[in-house]
Amino acid sequence: MAAWSERLAGVRGVLLDISGVLHDSGEGGGVPIPGSVEALARLKRSQLKVRFCTNESQKSRGDLVGLLRHMGFDISEDEVTAPAPATCLILKERGLRPHLLIHDGIRSEFAQIDTSNPNCVVIADAGESFSYQNMNKAFQVLMELDNPVLISLGKGRYYKETSGLMLDVGAYTKALEYACGIKAEVVGKPAPGYFQSALQEMGVESHEAIMIGDDIVGDVGGAQRCGMRALQVRTGKFRPSDEHHPEVKADGYVDDLAEAVDLLLQHAHQ
Amino acid sequence: MAAWSERLAGVRGVLLDISGVLHDSGEGGGVPIPGSVEALARLKRSQLKVRFCTNESQKSRGDLVGLLRHMGFDISEDEVTAPAPATCLILKERGLRPHLLIHDGIRSEFAQIDTSNPNCVVIADAGESFSYQNMNKAFQVLMELDNPVLISLGKGRYYKETSGLMLDVGAYTKALEYACGIKAEVVGKPAPGYFQSALQEMGVESHEAIMIGDDIVGDVGGAQRCGMRALQVRTGKFRPSDEHHPEVKADGYVDDLAEAVDLLLQHAHQ
Repeated sequence: MAAWSERLAGVRGVLLDISGVLHDSGEGGGVPIPGSVEALARLKRSQLKVRFCTNESQKSRGDLVGLLRHMGFDISEDEVTAPAPATCLILKERGLRPHLLIHDGIRSEFAQIDTSNPNCVVIADAGESFSYQNMNKAFQVLMELDNPVLISLGKGRYYKETSGLMLDVGAYTKALEYACGIKAEVVGKPAPGYFQSALQEMGVESHEAIMIGDDIVGDVGGAQRCGMRALQVRTGKFRPSDEHHPEVKADGYVDDLAEAVDLLLQHAHQ
Repeated sequence: MAAWSERLAGVRGVLLDISGVLHDSGEGGGVPIPGSVEALARLKRSQLKVRFCTNESQKSRGDLVGLLRHMGFDISEDEVTAPAPATCLILKERGLRPHLLIHDGIRSEFAQIDTSNPNCVVIADAGESFSYQNMNKAFQVLMELDNPVLISLGKGRYYKETSGLMLDVGAYTKALEYACGIKAEVVGKPAPGYFQSALQEMGVESHEAIMIGDDIVGDVGGAQRCGMRALQVRTGKFRPSDEHHPEVKADGYVDDLAEAVDLLLQHAHQ
């Protein structure tokens, strides 16, 4: 593999995944990943532009940022690209009235959305709210529509909490796709439009940007398909087999955010 | 389409789906489909061989037969091919110890199976037991296995209860397949081996047998791929669009079991 100086040359902007990179979520909000609070602080003091790009769909953007700030992270709401606000824009543009299969923690994001007489289903990481009854209700809504529209906030397979691996929204989206014979529209990583809106908000071209995430497919593969570079951290949901993934090869694998920031500050922007 | 006399000539054995053909399941066991009790009685008085081939995986075979007999159907346990007993044979043959993601109503079928230190997951139509917690536990068991084996009792998309359409096991199997990056082994329709074991138990060759079901893919398509003929009834989960299915065309569509039996008694065995 080429030297880091070559791999990181010309990087001007950094997109950071949140869960599994900054912190591991879990009971009571989770815990910061060792070294990541300080690494983020150093990154933000550099000349590199920084933005956060998350698929978090269990907590509102405000709650997520509050939690991270409480852990010591330097982060504000307007620095975060999150799927719920992006979905609300789409719903308004297209006149869609969703049936919401979501966690209570994110319901406030949809407060301004008309949910009467639904003509689509929005599915997010509902966690414990993925009961049979709630899944079946969403299924029945879709089956009664002539043109069933299913919008999925991300399509992650699983994520890591402090208590272990947890099923993510993607698994439940697949269940509804199969039951209804339809294909969901994804708002979130790895959808190209989602990365592009984050880049636009950061004001950096894709070839000058690098993604740092713990998901080899959703973060690394997705960013690379948009013309970005991407590093995978060996924290969060990382598994050793990711380094031999049959389809996706990261531009580099690093132990954690701290190592990624060390390398970026040394080699980027040259 | 050819005349019924041609389509049904030489039929010696009839495989009957249960839910959606004999009865609609639901609260208190459900209700018989009008005319089906009497139609089954006429069929059994004829020279045609009859066997039942179900994907029912919420109730034990004994409970299901008890319920149907209570509704007036002439049916006994040894006439029924059901996925749970078939799965138990496979588990014993291969030394598999399952983690069971199943409905309490079928747990008795697995009473003789060693479930300690599981090395596979068996998933059935768990209904309300498809909680996030139970799904996540099955997911975690699979992720900890070097060679994750997932056995699915059928792969139906949905079925009809008296209260409406209900998500079936197939949707949840897809969720686990996606989350774990694996492919389930299906025991039940439309797996060819399952139809073949039912034919063997009935003692009829596939070209002399006809399947009657309400599922265009699981019943009709599956049976046809085994060399059988197949009729779809317009009861149970039947939807008008099934008659224009892009991949599967039944050998005939009939209003209900009563019409199927009328036609069989008139034209089969010639």
